[in-house]
Amino acid sequence: MDAKTFDAKSLLDDLFDNGVLFDSGIDGLYGRSGDFEEVIERFEAMVLREGEKDGATRIHFPPGMSRPALEKSGYMKSFPQLAGCVHSFMGGESEHAELLGKMATGDDWTEMQESTGIAMTPAACYPLYPTVAARGPVPDEGLLFALSSYCFRHEPSKDPARMQLFRMREYVRIGTAEQVSAFRESWLKRGRAMIEALDLPMEVDAANDPFFGRGGKMMAASQREQGLKFELLIPVASLKKPTACLSFNYHQDHFGETWGLKFADGSTCHSGCVGFGLERLAIALFRHHGMDVKRWPANVREALWSA
Amino acid sequence: MDAKTFDAKSLLDDLFDNGVLFDSGIDGLYGRSGDFEEVIERFEAMVLREGEKDGATRIHFPPGMSRPALEKSGYMKSFPQLAGCVHSFMGGESEHAELLGKMATGDDWTEMQESTGIAMTPAACYPLYPTVAARGPVPDEGLLFALSSYCFRHEPSKDPARMQLFRMREYVRIGTAEQVSAFRESWLKRGRAMIEALDLPMEVDAANDPFFGRGGKMMAASQREQGLKFELLIPVASLKKPTACLSFNYHQDHFGETWGLKFADGSTCHSGCVGFGLERLAIALFRHHGMDVKRWPANVREALWSA
Repeated sequence: MDAKTFDAKSLLDDLFDNGVLFDSGIDGLYGRSGDFEEVIERFEAMVLREGEKDGATRIHFPPGMSRPALEKSGYMKSFPQLAGCVHSFMGGESEHAELLGKMATGDDWTEMQESTGIAMTPAACYPLYPTVAARGPVPDEGLLFALSSYCFRHEPSKDPARMQLFRMREYVRIGTAEQVSAFRESWLKRGRAMIEALDLPMEVDAANDPFFGRGGKMMAASQREQGLKFELLIPVASLKKPTACLSFNYHQDHFGETWGLKFADGSTCHSGCVGFGLERLAIALFRHHGMDVKRWPANVREALWSA
Repeated sequence: MDAKTFDAKSLLDDLFDNGVLFDSGIDGLYGRSGDFEEVIERFEAMVLREGEKDGATRIHFPPGMSRPALEKSGYMKSFPQLAGCVHSFMGGESEHAELLGKMATGDDWTEMQESTGIAMTPAACYPLYPTVAARGPVPDEGLLFALSSYCFRHEPSKDPARMQLFRMREYVRIGTAEQVSAFRESWLKRGRAMIEALDLPMEVDAANDPFFGRGGKMMAASQREQGLKFELLIPVASLKKPTACLSFNYHQDHFGETWGLKFADGSTCHSGCVGFGLERLAIALFRHHGMDVKRWPANVREALWSA
């Protein structure tokens, strides 16, 4: 069987059948095997070995962020279809009896919940900007952060590389346009080299985010024209539509303006990030090198386990 | 300043002021520093060094689980106030315009979202039972799993040891009553030894879960009487009300019955788990040994960094 002929659904079944992922009954929501987790850990070590050369500040955020902060970031304007908010039951005993009654009869009880202050984190860097803004002016040399977070996007799919809950590792550069540009160039080069070492086919291409609606089409076209987003794509579930496993983003001064990120002289900071989709990368490895990690090519194992 | 006199609010402020945690504006939702993360990693390594002796099967679940599975588990009956469900916007362009209008005028736009199939994972082991049930009969020697997961509980608090999103490491034993009992006894001993090595004050006591409502009081009393739950408590935000950092639970055949976990002879399995509250443990260490990890006592550093 040639792994290269898989479509999304049969790749997912293959991952289930080999105990790499575990079905939850919900598309895009899976348990992960110990082998899968070890692959992610080893790939993260490869990323960190590169990233450590630059001396980034490590911060970790949980899979949920402040809902007011997500609103302020503009996410609900651009990507309302992907966002998730956490709702909880806040009633008393009589409401609880009503809730259980609805559950017993198969009626919708979830509408008895109210929104909490927590939204799901859509990308590892969203909670960072307000945190940086609270710390005062950005130094002249700019800032560099190493992040990792579980992220949520509401896009149920049979494509195992499109999960609703997945982990993202990110480096975020905050500084001048030139500093951010140099950062992105450097990671475009390093990202390519890492994926080459893992013996995975790839291409790097200009890209756009999935902005919502008709107005979104114009924003997507503009983002592409301005070269604000590049993706490193690997064929995973399809040869024709390869999967973005790394992305390289230049936000211009969007987050700087939104959150008031400024240098001491009052000028607004630019920002950019490189993001690694950890589940996507792991699934690309299982797809191309086989379901049994022990039988992966020696050079791939060496690249991962020597990191 | 004697760390032992802190109350919850001043402990939280101290963690903020020292850059150990980062405020998000939402109680119980914080960013974590690199030092904080390293302490968690080192403690996890201590736990794993113990757990590896028993040869557990590692599975990892994301911070959300199947909502139907959470319903079937009985969680909404016992702990409706703590649960969280993920709601998303599923409308078209006109609804989106309405949503943005509400957001602009400060009206509640979140009610325009609908519940997805995903609920927040309340404890690391909840997604495990249906996964095990799908694999057929449980072998005579039972099963042992190593889990870790972000968990959500809706209980906003100024006590930094009571986060809404936190990580839990768990070992879960599925087998006969005797197998589960032996597992729990063994971890009660090992848990104590680990916390002793970290030079933290502790007590182990019978405990109960925070069952909802008046009926819940009876369930709590019964759980305590039957000795189904023990906690290892460490004073963190209060000397009078120490914080449960480890818990040792015997579920009897609750999950076995609910999910049809059976041996080949058709008898229902019992289950039990030991859970490590990773953020709680880390905060206990910062509280007792100080905000600067480098100045922690040599024996504590040795216990963590030699793992």
